Amino acid sequence: MQQEKFTGGFNKTKRKIPKETIDRLPLYLRCLQILIDEGKLKATSQMMSDKLHLNPHLVRKDLSRLGGFGTQGVGYPVKNLASQLRSILQVDQKWEIALVGVGNIGSALLTYQGFDRTAFNISLAFDEDTELIGEMANGVRIEHVSKLTERVQEESIKLGIIAVPATSAQKVADRLVDGGVKGILNFALPQITVPEPVTLAQVSLIKELEKLSFYL
Amino acid sequence: MQQEKFTGGFNKTKRKIPKETIDRLPLYLRCLQILIDEGKLKATSQMMSDKLHLNPHLVRKDLSRLGGFGTQGVGYPVKNLASQLRSILQVDQKWEIALVGVGNIGSALLTYQGFDRTAFNISLAFDEDTELIGEMANGVRIEHVSKLTERVQEESIKLGIIAVPATSAQKVADRLVDGGVKGILNFALPQITVPEPVTLAQVSLIKELEKLSFYL
Repeated sequence: MQQEKFTGGFNKTKRKIPKETIDRLPLYLRCLQILIDEGKLKATSQMMSDKLHLNPHLVRKDLSRLGGFGTQGVGYPVKNLASQLRSILQVDQKWEIALVGVGNIGSALLTYQGFDRTAFNISLAFDEDTELIGEMANGVRIEHVSKLTERVQEESIKLGIIAVPATSAQKVADRLVDGGVKGILNFALPQITVPEPVTLAQVSLIKELEKLSFYL
Repeated sequence: MQQEKFTGGFNKTKRKIPKETIDRLPLYLRCLQILIDEGKLKATSQMMSDKLHLNPHLVRKDLSRLGGFGTQGVGYPVKNLASQLRSILQVDQKWEIALVGVGNIGSALLTYQGFDRTAFNISLAFDEDTELIGEMANGVRIEHVSKLTERVQEESIKLGIIAVPATSAQKVADRLVDGGVKGILNFALPQITVPEPVTLAQVSLIKELEKLSFYL
């Protein structure tokens, strides 16, 4: 009956948390930030599930998987839980990102204001178009993609974003991995593969639209 | 022991297919298109699961939920299965889209080449910046957002994409719904809500990066 305490020894067990739970942590964090802005001190799983349109049991189960935050019926201390989630997600530090491909999507990402106040910042940008090389975009100098592996290694970059045409996506992913990148967000259409322990996330506009059109 | 046949009476039962299965259908479709390009006539669940890094049992279960395609051990006829999936996802027709917000992300979407050869096309675009109104982007004339509900209704648009700042996202969603839109893809940061039976999909760059940074 004893409640498990969050002891800070989280790193040892983090791989055991189901991917589905990890996928929801950013939602919980966003929700807590809203509750903080609303001046709330405690958050119940019911409040969080209402805001997120999730089952309250699921929210409770997810949070219990991270260790024992809060007490049944009383709720979680909002600021403390938010700061624990930031620590688990490792967004309590700044991550520099290498962006590959400065076409339409890439340019939009480079100038995206939404990165402010987040843990993320694009600090390197690459393209193969020689006309773009040396150009500055939002304080970042665009470099030739042939230097990708070398530059990513030099700057110890751990996150990459791929926004190149479909045919180059896998080659770019390989070069990022060679340079030591551990997480890749892919905007290109094809399914690409990365070796363990590199993690891949895929943003596909067309896939999202196809899911929507099913329900039309 | 009799295998269920796909009889075309799919619409009556489509709501019973689990959301998780629907979410994977676009992946299966993409995979089948690759197999077709490779000249394959039959696809086994093993071939598909290998390409998609999924469990073959899951692929088999998902496809069995749609009705009886293929025969155990022989595989699915690739072109037939692809065409059935397109019909189920309703991407065997063209869907016109209303885009709201022509900032960085919105402009990138308007000029995105990836829509070619898909079921989707942005045919209306809206912004509140009076300097943009009347401008042409990729053949689409940008209109003032005050006309959103009226224009979406006039053109019988069923899909909307929201790419406006966080503070306007919910208001824009409400106007799209008022105009008869049934599916919304939201690029804005906040969690927005839509009434039944409207479907919402959320693309969040920061959320994807936060998932990745957990594993770093």
